[in-house]
Amino acid sequence: MKSCCEAEPKKPKRAIIREVCPRDGFQNVKEFIPTERKINIIDKLASTGISCMEVTSFVSPKAIPQMRDAAEVMEEFNKKWKGKIKSYVLVPNLRGAENALKVNPDSLNFVISASEAHNKANTNRSVKESLEELKKIADLAEDTELAVSVATAFECPFCGAVPPERVIELLDAILEMGIKNVTLADTIGTANPSEVKRTLKKIKQRYKDYPFFLHLHDTQGMALANTMVALELGYSRFDAATGGLGGCPFAPGAAGNLATEDLVNFLDKLGIITGVDLMKVIGIARELQSYGFNVISHLASCSVCS
Amino acid sequence: MKSCCEAEPKKPKRAIIREVCPRDGFQNVKEFIPTERKINIIDKLASTGISCMEVTSFVSPKAIPQMRDAAEVMEEFNKKWKGKIKSYVLVPNLRGAENALKVNPDSLNFVISASEAHNKANTNRSVKESLEELKKIADLAEDTELAVSVATAFECPFCGAVPPERVIELLDAILEMGIKNVTLADTIGTANPSEVKRTLKKIKQRYKDYPFFLHLHDTQGMALANTMVALELGYSRFDAATGGLGGCPFAPGAAGNLATEDLVNFLDKLGIITGVDLMKVIGIARELQSYGFNVISHLASCSVCS
Repeated sequence: MKSCCEAEPKKPKRAIIREVCPRDGFQNVKEFIPTERKINIIDKLASTGISCMEVTSFVSPKAIPQMRDAAEVMEEFNKKWKGKIKSYVLVPNLRGAENALKVNPDSLNFVISASEAHNKANTNRSVKESLEELKKIADLAEDTELAVSVATAFECPFCGAVPPERVIELLDAILEMGIKNVTLADTIGTANPSEVKRTLKKIKQRYKDYPFFLHLHDTQGMALANTMVALELGYSRFDAATGGLGGCPFAPGAAGNLATEDLVNFLDKLGIITGVDLMKVIGIARELQSYGFNVISHLASCSVCS
Repeated sequence: MKSCCEAEPKKPKRAIIREVCPRDGFQNVKEFIPTERKINIIDKLASTGISCMEVTSFVSPKAIPQMRDAAEVMEEFNKKWKGKIKSYVLVPNLRGAENALKVNPDSLNFVISASEAHNKANTNRSVKESLEELKKIADLAEDTELAVSVATAFECPFCGAVPPERVIELLDAILEMGIKNVTLADTIGTANPSEVKRTLKKIKQRYKDYPFFLHLHDTQGMALANTMVALELGYSRFDAATGGLGGCPFAPGAAGNLATEDLVNFLDKLGIITGVDLMKVIGIARELQSYGFNVISHLASCSVCS
């Protein structure tokens, strides 16, 4: 007889991948990507079988000039993909939310760091002030879904390991507002599977089947090990960026977001259905490489996979 | 009360890393590395705190000209490191073993593939013939330890997933000969954590505390996820190559061996003692990069870690 300890991990049968290359990826490309090229890449990404995408970011064009064409990009996206692919746009503040709502995305994504120091560095606000801003955006958004990304949910570049209790305190405040869509982010990609397991276990115990997204970076090569830990705890929603674009301003040259192709290959091999066509994603990653973007992924470099 | 299912995985407190860059890494560098430079790099690797190293390979100089200075390299190694660092040398056949024994390594390492097709392609022998060759080498080696690497222990480039039963059948034959040191290799780096877990579990059940080494490649970015699975099953010995050198002839351009710096960082973060100085390893990886070697590792590219 099998004891309970021998039970196989309850890995999900299906996973949802949110493609974040057009936001987290493009945002880290220094030279302006012409709007037409952005739209062209987004169309290709939208054709891979992906079900949701972070399309752009309504930040100040002064802060991030790369995103100055956010409205145009979003309008083009809606023409072709509205109703087919769920769109997210990043909004750093109320003003960004106002601008975003004019072009009708499916979801606004607001960022708050679990670490006070990182929130201050990233947004020049205290966590309390960010929660107040979130409340204002929630009042404004009305029928548009409001999502929140919790940055530094595991580790902070300034203060190291973030206690799960701190993350849960923040999640309580966010969920109390009725937010239905929250992402837990390893913003700098230094979290290890033990830490990730510890925090995700506590979050699972408290919030049961709340459909959290995981946003993992591959800075130190641990993203798939962390994905494995998350899958074994029943988490099934993951951000990824084709070509592994994006990343952490503290680690130039290092790997960025978990590459969509590496994640899709990994989930394919584990028998978890994603609906995403690996070969198409690899093709796009190689196209991004041909534009001189900093593509860092295993599958895009693997000639076995071509 | 905690149920048994909630028990934390019984991860080891210490891990042993065998540095294989001078063999598996150098072997994949096309241009001949001058002997003096090889020795210089080996000396640096030996100074990182590593306790064992695969120093060279006694293959035919016609087959792999890079290794034509194996005897000289091994002699130099012994002058400085004999008694301090356990040395392994690869021997593909009886003749290699004869040559190797002249320069007194601590251990001879012979390779047999679990997959018949891969063994044929790699050595032009059937598995049965390889076992016969192993027997001859065992008779010859006498007081020198004989180790065996089981290639394609999880996946084979020709026939896909290798059944654990096949691996166990081969391990039975090897262990019957009294071999005290066996490595399980994911030769092409395509094994996923589910497969690795399945095979390692069965091996653990059968051979209990036999001190297997794991030899993992990072071709598809899964090496650390596989390491995690192995650690959770109590395995604690790992091959790694500084700079992630080496790799699979079927995947040119792809990542090679699990990089020592990525493994050390990972184990450090998990609180598992290795005795290896991460910063020294990163320094050597960057030096290898400066020689134009195909360094692919996360930590060597991460400016946070410099």
